[in-house]
Amino acid sequence: MELFLLSNGKLSGESSLLGYANEHIQAMLKARNITSAVLIPYALIRSDYDARAQDLEQALGIKVGSIHHAETPSEAIEQAECILISGGNTWMLNQLLHENGLIVPIQRAVRERNVPYIGWSAGCNVATPSIRTTNDMPVRNSVVLPSLGLFPVQINPHYIDAHLSGHMGETRDERIAEFCAVNPSESVIALREGSLLKVSGNDLSYFSAKGQGFKVFRHGHDIREYHDTLALSPLVPFNCR
Amino acid sequence: MELFLLSNGKLSGESSLLGYANEHIQAMLKARNITSAVLIPYALIRSDYDARAQDLEQALGIKVGSIHHAETPSEAIEQAECILISGGNTWMLNQLLHENGLIVPIQRAVRERNVPYIGWSAGCNVATPSIRTTNDMPVRNSVVLPSLGLFPVQINPHYIDAHLSGHMGETRDERIAEFCAVNPSESVIALREGSLLKVSGNDLSYFSAKGQGFKVFRHGHDIREYHDTLALSPLVPFNCR
Repeated sequence: MELFLLSNGKLSGESSLLGYANEHIQAMLKARNITSAVLIPYALIRSDYDARAQDLEQALGIKVGSIHHAETPSEAIEQAECILISGGNTWMLNQLLHENGLIVPIQRAVRERNVPYIGWSAGCNVATPSIRTTNDMPVRNSVVLPSLGLFPVQINPHYIDAHLSGHMGETRDERIAEFCAVNPSESVIALREGSLLKVSGNDLSYFSAKGQGFKVFRHGHDIREYHDTLALSPLVPFNCR
Repeated sequence: MELFLLSNGKLSGESSLLGYANEHIQAMLKARNITSAVLIPYALIRSDYDARAQDLEQALGIKVGSIHHAETPSEAIEQAECILISGGNTWMLNQLLHENGLIVPIQRAVRERNVPYIGWSAGCNVATPSIRTTNDMPVRNSVVLPSLGLFPVQINPHYIDAHLSGHMGETRDERIAEFCAVNPSESVIALREGSLLKVSGNDLSYFSAKGQGFKVFRHGHDIREYHDTLALSPLVPFNCR
């Protein structure tokens, strides 16, 4: 399996999509001789699908086609060299993955044919077992919570522990702690902006463009910050390092 | 109908729950000679139901009993003089309202018997047609979106237009604009901290402890800020002023 799970698409001030992770992505693309990718842009609501595909072509230097042009979306996945899943609204994305019959085709592509999966923000959320740790507003009238489950632990992308003065809603830490209280057998990995969890074969590694750590939340356990994936060993079936 | 729809429970630095709205609440309680209330605390995940009831007794000066002590929750609603719905996690609250069979009993109490409804944060969300404009994390494995529909327009509580530096997730304005793009026939009222929409009989009024306005979002319309409810006239069946 080849998973790039990114907290976000762009860092503040960055002009290019996935810029902070491009070195890692390029190394994989070159090693695998990949020259094209299929974009799943369903998370976008107020942005253009084709414009996002063009941005990614420029950013990654490979041919990128949006799946909405495919007559049969599942066939586009069957033929894909690489799968890109853009950020946006996680509810919209997960619903359309299900409605377009793409859950099993993507699982097969990634697990059985080793097609690389690069997902950021909402595209990172849907790689986990469910979208219960999204930050997004549930804008759809119907919702599905289970998702691709390519990565076995819930991830909270765009994790931030700063707090706006005067705002009396829950902090992110409180929201994740609520998740853990309701789901005490599960853990949540909190990924800050500019960070990446990478599964390559059986290896799981972590990178942060800003040198920051990630946090792991579990009910009844101390919340700690980590700079490598060793602490994830009990939670995932990968070699952590 | 008597609805108190509050953005939040406490203002920053306030020691007492509902302090910023207490003058309005006390006027109603006295006019109606109300001496007790039933608390629906289902939104609380990491706080104690009875402790919340005690806080509210102190804050409001009336007897407050939590509905979790009732053998038959719907009967507690049938006998309630006043209904208090606490903030917390909206998903948890809405699910438990449905699972405990309280949707119709509360609708009847409020609409037919004129029992006052005081809801803040999550308790404000569930008073609207659905919980699609919550800010909360969907921590439950099963979810229901439709809610009480006592107030006919979606409300986004804890509305804030400030933004944390370096955070690349959507702003609140972007999230609500996405809702409106997906649901172009609907509007969203954005209520800042310390503000209250009050339905009394057929009258709808607005108060803000900080003298701030509320915003109305609708797809394809300019977003404006209002200090009275006149602009809501086309959206609600109340006398707006």
